[in-house]
Formats: sequence, C-alpha cells, structure tokens
Amino acid sequence: MKRIVLVGAGRVATCLGIALQKVDYEIVQVYSRTEVSASALARRLSTAYITSLDEICRDADLYLVAVTDSALEEVAEKVTKGREHALFVHTAGSMPLDVWKGWVRRYGVFYPMQTFSKEREVDFSKVPVFIEASSSEEWHDLHALAAELGSKVYGLTSDQRKYLHVAAVFACNFTNHMYVLGARLLEEHGIPFEVMLPLIDETARKVHELAPAEAQTGPAVRCDENVIIRHLAMLSDYPLVQDLYERISWSIRNQKTKEK
Amino acid sequence: MKRIVLVGAGRVATCLGIALQKVDYEIVQVYSRTEVSASALARRLSTAYITSLDEICRDADLYLVAVTDSALEEVAEKVTKGREHALFVHTAGSMPLDVWKGWVRRYGVFYPMQTFSKEREVDFSKVPVFIEASSSEEWHDLHALAAELGSKVYGLTSDQRKYLHVAAVFACNFTNHMYVLGARLLEEHGIPFEVMLPLIDETARKVHELAPAEAQTGPAVRCDENVIIRHLAMLSDYPLVQDLYERISWSIRNQKTKEK
Repeated sequence: MKRIVLVGAGRVATCLGIALQKVDYEIVQVYSRTEVSASALARRLSTAYITSLDEICRDADLYLVAVTDSALEEVAEKVTKGREHALFVHTAGSMPLDVWKGWVRRYGVFYPMQTFSKEREVDFSKVPVFIEASSSEEWHDLHALAAELGSKVYGLTSDQRKYLHVAAVFACNFTNHMYVLGARLLEEHGIPFEVMLPLIDETARKVHELAPAEAQTGPAVRCDENVIIRHLAMLSDYPLVQDLYERISWSIRNQKTKEK
Repeated sequence: MKRIVLVGAGRVATCLGIALQKVDYEIVQVYSRTEVSASALARRLSTAYITSLDEICRDADLYLVAVTDSALEEVAEKVTKGREHALFVHTAGSMPLDVWKGWVRRYGVFYPMQTFSKEREVDFSKVPVFIEASSSEEWHDLHALAAELGSKVYGLTSDQRKYLHVAAVFACNFTNHMYVLGARLLEEHGIPFEVMLPLIDETARKVHELAPAEAQTGPAVRCDENVIIRHLAMLSDYPLVQDLYERISWSIRNQKTKEK
C-alpha cells in the first residue's frame, strides 16, 4: 500500500501528504477543485495535480479523501467509479463510515485529531488517529499507516466518534471561549493578556498528570461563597458573563457532589 | 534588603523561600502557627523556625507574609508591632494594599500568580509578579526583588488585581471544568481522556501567538446550526451539560457579533 492519491488539498491533506512522503509513501497525485490549492500542494510534494475527479489515476493503492464534510458524499460516489479494487478512506471526524457503503468494498475512516495549519509541520507522533474500517484486513492496513507516522491509534465506532467531537467542543472550543472572557476582563482593566499565559499553560499541563476533576481549583469547588458573591457583584455590568459565571460555578459544585 | 523573614510556610512561602535563597537572599527565620510546617520549611532552607509571632526577630529588612487571606488582617496587626522600621509585604492576590495601613509606614503587595506546590520547584522567570507599594521607594525595592528572581513585573492597583482574579477564574478554573465535562462524555462512551491532550495543549499554545478571540474555532463561531442542533440532541440525557453547551455557544456568537 505504497501509492497514494490525495483527494483534497486543504490543511489535513497538506499535513498528511508531507508526513506520509517523509516515511516513504509515494503521493502519486493531488486533487483539488481549485487549481491554486491543487498546484500549491503538488509543488510541495513534487508530484502531479488534477482538478477533475475523472482524471484521478486508477492504479493507486489508497485514495485518501480529505475534503469538507458537506462535499464528502458527492466525492465518494464519483471517486470510487472504476477504482473498485482500491482502499478508500476519509479523514473527517464527524462523518460516518457508511458514507462509502454501496460504492466500494474496501473502505475506512482515518481521522487524525488535531488543529492543522498549512504553514506548520505536524509531529504526528503527538496526534491520536481514530480508525474504523470495512473489515479487519483494512483496519490493519490503516493501523500500519498510522504506525509508520508514529501516531497512537484508537479504534472507535462512528457513534463513539460523534461523542468525541462533542467532548472536543468542550475541552477546546469552549476552553478557548473561557480565555476570551478572561481576556476581555483584563483588557477592560488595562492588564495585558500575556500575564495569564503561565497559568493557562499550567492548567493544561496539570491534566496530563491528574484527572480533570482532581485538578479542579478555585472558589466554586472550595464552596467559597464570599468570593463567588464578590465576583458576581463585580460582573454586574456584564450580565451575560455574570450568568455564565454563576452557571459554570453551579456545574462545578454539582459535579463535585456527584463524585462524593 | 538582604535579610528576610518568611511569615507562613505554605506553598507560596516554600517556593518563594527556595527561589530567594538561590539568588543569595538570607532567610533568617520561618514562622508558621503549626510546628510541622514551620520546621519542614526551615529544614529545607537550613534556617531557624518559630511558631509564635512574638518570637519573630526585629532586625530583618523584609517581612514576607504568605498566610491565608482570612488570617492576613490579624497577622498584619501583630507582626508589625515593634518592627516599624522594616518593609512588610503580603503575597495574597485578592487582598488589598490597605491591609497594612495604620500599622506600619513601608509596605506592599508582592503577588506571584501561579499554581504552586511544595513538591515542585518553580521557575520564577515564568511567573508574572504583581506589585503594589506604599511609595515609589518600596515599589523599587520590590521590583528589584522580582528582577533578581527573573520574574516579569507588573504594577497593578488593588482594584485591577480584583479583576485579574476573576479573569483567572475564567481562564483557569472554568477552563478546567470544560476539561471535566469533556472527560465525562469520553468516559461514558469508553474513550480514554488522554486522546484529548494534544488538542488541549494546542488550544493553550495557540493563545501565545493569537488573541483568544482570533483563535476561536468550532461550530458556534462558524454559526454551524446543523452541528449545534445535533450536539444538543446528543446531550439530551445531560440537561445541565446541554444547558451550558447552548449558553456558551450563544456567548461565542454574541462575542463574535460585537467584534464586527
């Protein structure tokens, strides 16, 4: 399984293509609807590019499809035609395995969970990869691919992957919003955001060693009513932020009660 | 200002004492109400300890008071008696400068903002220190002290420090609760929490380079109603978590609208 076609030239395709080439896979073609994206990635990988699905070669071992969620179903139907021998895989975490069903016999999901950007090279040894496949044979092929990249592999069902996605919204997107709200309070009182970075780093570092519930600190988990009341009063000019402060504090105490 | 008495033997006193000794300050005494704490820290610093405020020596240059918020006022009154020549400083971020007023002429706040633990040595070059003082002379003394530790110094008023504390509740305590909620969803679907760590690290790392509002990703900031509705439906068994998902998503969109 050495000859790979990259279908898509976005952030995931770019990072995966570069990493796979480094461990001696051959990227035989890059496809993107837009010539700018296709040619840019093809140049980085010193390979050919095409902008029409019909022109994709028919003799690759693996077609790695990294297109947007909404485009995937249409691409799956078209790209499989006349290439029924090969293994087809998509990289979209929120899309089910079944998207390939009916079009082709050998298929799978290869979802590397990280925030990728085209400019920065990714260390795949630090990226967990979630795999699902049509049969154990394809599962092992995909496992071998991830192992070559040095990634840690997890087998998840499509249903588990859905919950993984919601969990990531909390642990990453909502976490970033907590940074936003903190930054806003600092800004409005003339304090630079950088002062918060050492604490933010330590908060992330701590959950490498402790379960998040054990790492919880602050007035809510201490049930320090005096501080909570003082903070709510200070936030009276920001009713939405005040409301979130109250509800998250309540959720922290509720979580603590449940653990007992 | 080389001879220092540590009033308190908790986490902050321990980390500060070790760091100050390393840059050649002399810790002449350690005080704690409890002998176990006092003797433990005194042993680490090879110095004397006392457990009565009356026995604290009268010829130190600086009395560094690192006791709990609730004990500070009482300690301030007692520890200043007969030592009116010296500089008195407390390390509690949430307590005002005024706590010293009336008791002594030279005083200040020296608040190193980090999560300290007695077991781990702290790199003070990565700890921001917030200073306030009775006059510019004391301010410069405290600035010099922080500079010797390699810390970045910020001058904040007592009022600014109060908002700094609320901001830290959002950026650190509430962030950790987002990890807790994510961890719970993963656990209930048989997924190990460790899979989330690379994304958590990257989320923290990103705000070193981008303002948090610019770093925001996820369905809420993309206004991706389909994903949000699907996620809310998946959370119907967890009404409290569902409620937080909805409100935080709304807050993200509200924040985005304001930026426009």
